Amino acid sequence: MKFLKINMTDRTIKTENVPEQYRGLGGRGLTSIMINAEVRPKCDPLGPENMLIVAPGFLSGTNLVNTSRISIGAKSPLTGTIKESNAGGTVAAALGRLGITAVIIEGQAPEGEISFLKIDEKGDALLVPAREHKGKRTYALVEEILETYGKKTSVLCIGPAGEQRLAAASIQSSDIDGRPCRAAGRGGLGAVMGAKGLKAIIVDQGGKTPDPLADPEAFKEAAKGIVKAIKEDPMSSHVMPELGTAGLVAPVNSMGAFPSYNARKGVLEGWEKISGEAMAKLIRERGGKTTHMGCAQCIVHCSNEFVDQKGEYITGSLEYETIWSMGGMTGIDDLDTIARLDHLCDDIGVDTMSTGVAVAVAMDAGHAKFGDSKAALRMVEEIARGTEFGKILGNGPVAVGKHFNHARVPAVKGQSIAAYDPRAMLGNGVTFATCPMGADHTAGNLVGAYLTRQLDPLKNEGQVETSRNLQIAMAAADCTGICFMAFVALLGPEGGSAFLSAINAKFGTKLGPDDIQALGVRVLKAEREFNRKAGFTNQDDRLPRFFYEEPLPPHNTVFTISDRELDTVFDF
Amino acid sequence: MKFLKINMTDRTIKTENVPEQYRGLGGRGLTSIMINAEVRPKCDPLGPENMLIVAPGFLSGTNLVNTSRISIGAKSPLTGTIKESNAGGTVAAALGRLGITAVIIEGQAPEGEISFLKIDEKGDALLVPAREHKGKRTYALVEEILETYGKKTSVLCIGPAGEQRLAAASIQSSDIDGRPCRAAGRGGLGAVMGAKGLKAIIVDQGGKTPDPLADPEAFKEAAKGIVKAIKEDPMSSHVMPELGTAGLVAPVNSMGAFPSYNARKGVLEGWEKISGEAMAKLIRERGGKTTHMGCAQCIVHCSNEFVDQKGEYITGSLEYETIWSMGGMTGIDDLDTIARLDHLCDDIGVDTMSTGVAVAVAMDAGHAKFGDSKAALRMVEEIARGTEFGKILGNGPVAVGKHFNHARVPAVKGQSIAAYDPRAMLGNGVTFATCPMGADHTAGNLVGAYLTRQLDPLKNEGQVETSRNLQIAMAAADCTGICFMAFVALLGPEGGSAFLSAINAKFGTKLGPDDIQALGVRVLKAEREFNRKAGFTNQDDRLPRFFYEEPLPPHNTVFTISDRELDTVFDF
Repeated sequence: MKFLKINMTDRTIKTENVPEQYRGLGGRGLTSIMINAEVRPKCDPLGPENMLIVAPGFLSGTNLVNTSRISIGAKSPLTGTIKESNAGGTVAAALGRLGITAVIIEGQAPEGEISFLKIDEKGDALLVPAREHKGKRTYALVEEILETYGKKTSVLCIGPAGEQRLAAASIQSSDIDGRPCRAAGRGGLGAVMGAKGLKAIIVDQGGKTPDPLADPEAFKEAAKGIVKAIKEDPMSSHVMPELGTAGLVAPVNSMGAFPSYNARKGVLEGWEKISGEAMAKLIRERGGKTTHMGCAQCIVHCSNEFVDQKGEYITGSLEYETIWSMGGMTGIDDLDTIARLDHLCDDIGVDTMSTGVAVAVAMDAGHAKFGDSKAALRMVEEIARGTEFGKILGNGPVAVGKHFNHARVPAVKGQSIAAYDPRAMLGNGVTFATCPMGADHTAGNLVGAYLTRQLDPLKNEGQVETSRNLQIAMAAADCTGICFMAFVALLGPEGGSAFLSAINAKFGTKLGPDDIQALGVRVLKAEREFNRKAGFTNQDDRLPRFFYEEPLPPHNTVFTISDRELDTVFDF
Repeated sequence: MKFLKINMTDRTIKTENVPEQYRGLGGRGLTSIMINAEVRPKCDPLGPENMLIVAPGFLSGTNLVNTSRISIGAKSPLTGTIKESNAGGTVAAALGRLGITAVIIEGQAPEGEISFLKIDEKGDALLVPAREHKGKRTYALVEEILETYGKKTSVLCIGPAGEQRLAAASIQSSDIDGRPCRAAGRGGLGAVMGAKGLKAIIVDQGGKTPDPLADPEAFKEAAKGIVKAIKEDPMSSHVMPELGTAGLVAPVNSMGAFPSYNARKGVLEGWEKISGEAMAKLIRERGGKTTHMGCAQCIVHCSNEFVDQKGEYITGSLEYETIWSMGGMTGIDDLDTIARLDHLCDDIGVDTMSTGVAVAVAMDAGHAKFGDSKAALRMVEEIARGTEFGKILGNGPVAVGKHFNHARVPAVKGQSIAAYDPRAMLGNGVTFATCPMGADHTAGNLVGAYLTRQLDPLKNEGQVETSRNLQIAMAAADCTGICFMAFVALLGPEGGSAFLSAINAKFGTKLGPDDIQALGVRVLKAEREFNRKAGFTNQDDRLPRFFYEEPLPPHNTVFTISDRELDTVFDF
């Protein structure tokens, strides 16, 4: 229950008790409510007025499985909106075990100065000059950090892209194996960290002072119920360990909703070559790992290790959204290229989704041909080299569209959509259009409702309501630190009840489902309020024109949810 | 009293009577009120929803002297705000003589298509395919146009920068001698014209159907009074013909308010070499022209022709603001270089002010040394060549600052300040901060009040009030088509009364000074309303931080007008 406040301007470090108004909050709830309260909405995201808030979920640091999601919040340099970007790995658990509710980075180091923030096993923090690590890519950086500080260390860090303050720069999070292959990719928060003058946050995993549980026995009981629910859920217990999120490639293509060739088609020719099934087969043949444990306390094991023909590591957890952005959008149906691009992005520290879509927009504008693997690799390498085109690419697809005067940029509020075409999955279009953080697939993804046939993706009916409900549910879930792969198993009555019991046992409360819903609404309201003060209106809650005008094969449908309907999403 | 409406999407041309709600408006009043009423505030400035409105003042086309200012309005791609950018030349008079209240460009031509809009001596318009003129610079373009259509032709056109849709692209306006050396420079309206698919608007000067005057005799009388006032005003009748606007270099430097070396100092070392006096001397020695007539019906003759050592034309009307941006800001104290840069900008079709400041920001960020003429010329040439850095430069100083992660960018709402440092001329800082169009020197410039010692530039007292009054006065003046050099002579009681009589004689009204004030307020309110709907708030009416924090030598003062005071500027 403490805040660690670091002022980069004068290098002061303060530990303070969590102020009354932020008690009981964690993760996205904390970052969003605090940013709305304390950051000037019109401030320069890369200036000293912005805050970078790193907050584990309020269940992180407990023994509960799958609770190591870290929320990172700030005003986004990519979208200009409030932003919470979350990542897996081990750092949320490490901070939770230290009883640190949030690490809050304020101010700005003098130009050219760069530091590590080191947090030891007692929770004491120190700013360490890190000039010799300037420009370093993340894999090499984290390897050195672990050599210096020991293997039992969690790292959040930026690569050259963050140091260059590129608007699509990520913050990379180290996994169980000490690889910086998890990313808080969206919204360019790596640029905010770079602008602060911070290269890495290094956290000792040996903390033994987590916040006390109000009712340890009840918590233990609830935790068991949660494990049971996860083990019994077919998605969490079979599909995810087997195929990972890449299991979505086949069904989304078969639904004609896999945005391909910069969203000119809904099916990628050759999708079979990059499906989860194809990937799992290839990894097994080559001796890599599927069903791999990436995050602290994980029992789902959706992760994988992709290896080359010699069995050498290429990248860690090749995920659905990356396979889509680097494969579907660019027309590259080759997993080896996609894996290399994924690794390159993690290593440079840029969002794989924004970057893949940026490459696709450049291809669509005639800069290279769809499907040209070499061109894609060359382009992404330019980001690390800091060339002028590399900077444009690293600023995301909207910057690329502007550079080429090309209007077909599938982005909302400056951030690219994810792997679900709004014309063939209308509800995901609703979420993309209205999400306070720009187009986002984690903020209210309806793909589960479509796969289970609870909702027809091509009919307007129910889309707005389902998007609204999911956006509320995710805003609440993102407060807890639970990962989505486990969370889906808790949407049923038993799992849900166990999850609620765990929260109540942690805080000594008697919250019901309505209270969780109220929490989600509170978070969304804070985010919307910040955006309104930053100058956003309902008119920003719209998709790019081409989604309304260009029919998407094979269904040949356009996005048909009216502006009026979109404006009702947040009627609460 | 007619609108000429051109839809670039379907190439339809319509002539219609001016609708009731726009009657009696002209220039900026018409463009701003119409854009606020008809353009979606959140639209893409470079998309089909934006409108480009070309409106002569309501006195343009009459026989009154100095009334050939053309207002061009749109949503700006540089600032995201509403924008009116005005220019001299001959086109406003030509349109006025045709009784055309506005040329309204809507829609968007298919990618790659480019046209001329030709308006003949009867006011009939035609879209002429102009593919062979793609990429042409403005001087060569206008020469060809005049060869084809005759010397008695006025041209508004864009260069390669506008075709590339760069955010600092200008629309160039041809002068009396048929040179495209006048510019609607600010706000990137050249990019809007380029995005529409329009290379040039060509207007026959032989129109004989101006709107009738309600009282021709009274108008004649008033016009005489105006000529008398201009002839008797020392600024309009002596300083301007002698030195042009460059006459400001010496006094503003002596006041320590000439932003130099990217606004690190208030005095340029070597300012004597680039003063109006030095320029006039050099021009005379080399056989060029001072006291030159640039605009239709001009009796002030503030223009000049700058020539090289052989007496060959380099550029037309080298103005104070350009000497500042290309000289003071970059530390280049050499008029020949400045003149070449000015010509290059006109030829490429970019704003000299944004471009000079963009070069200065690049220098300040370490990309070149202050004072390096060759580097400056090379950089600006890159805009025409369309290199990646050229595009960044052509997108203005904010884009350059972003590229170099350099925060010292003297711009408000994306547009650079002009040649008066807010720290040494506080009231100009008030105008820069609050002007609905971004930092702008024509929207309410207090330099006259400082030079005549009506106001102390370094004391807070009276700055907000004077800025408010001037912003209102200019908003009204910009409706009439009168040029500023004549307008300053009409601020006294006799000139002012004659000017009011002219307006009343034109419309058959009995307006008093309060009505003119009310017109200015109406225009500003429309502009502010558009911006509010586009997402701007009071928080955008601020100067960049360094003006509040970095003392400016030699006075070593900072900008001291509080946010609260700034927020009272539009209390009307």
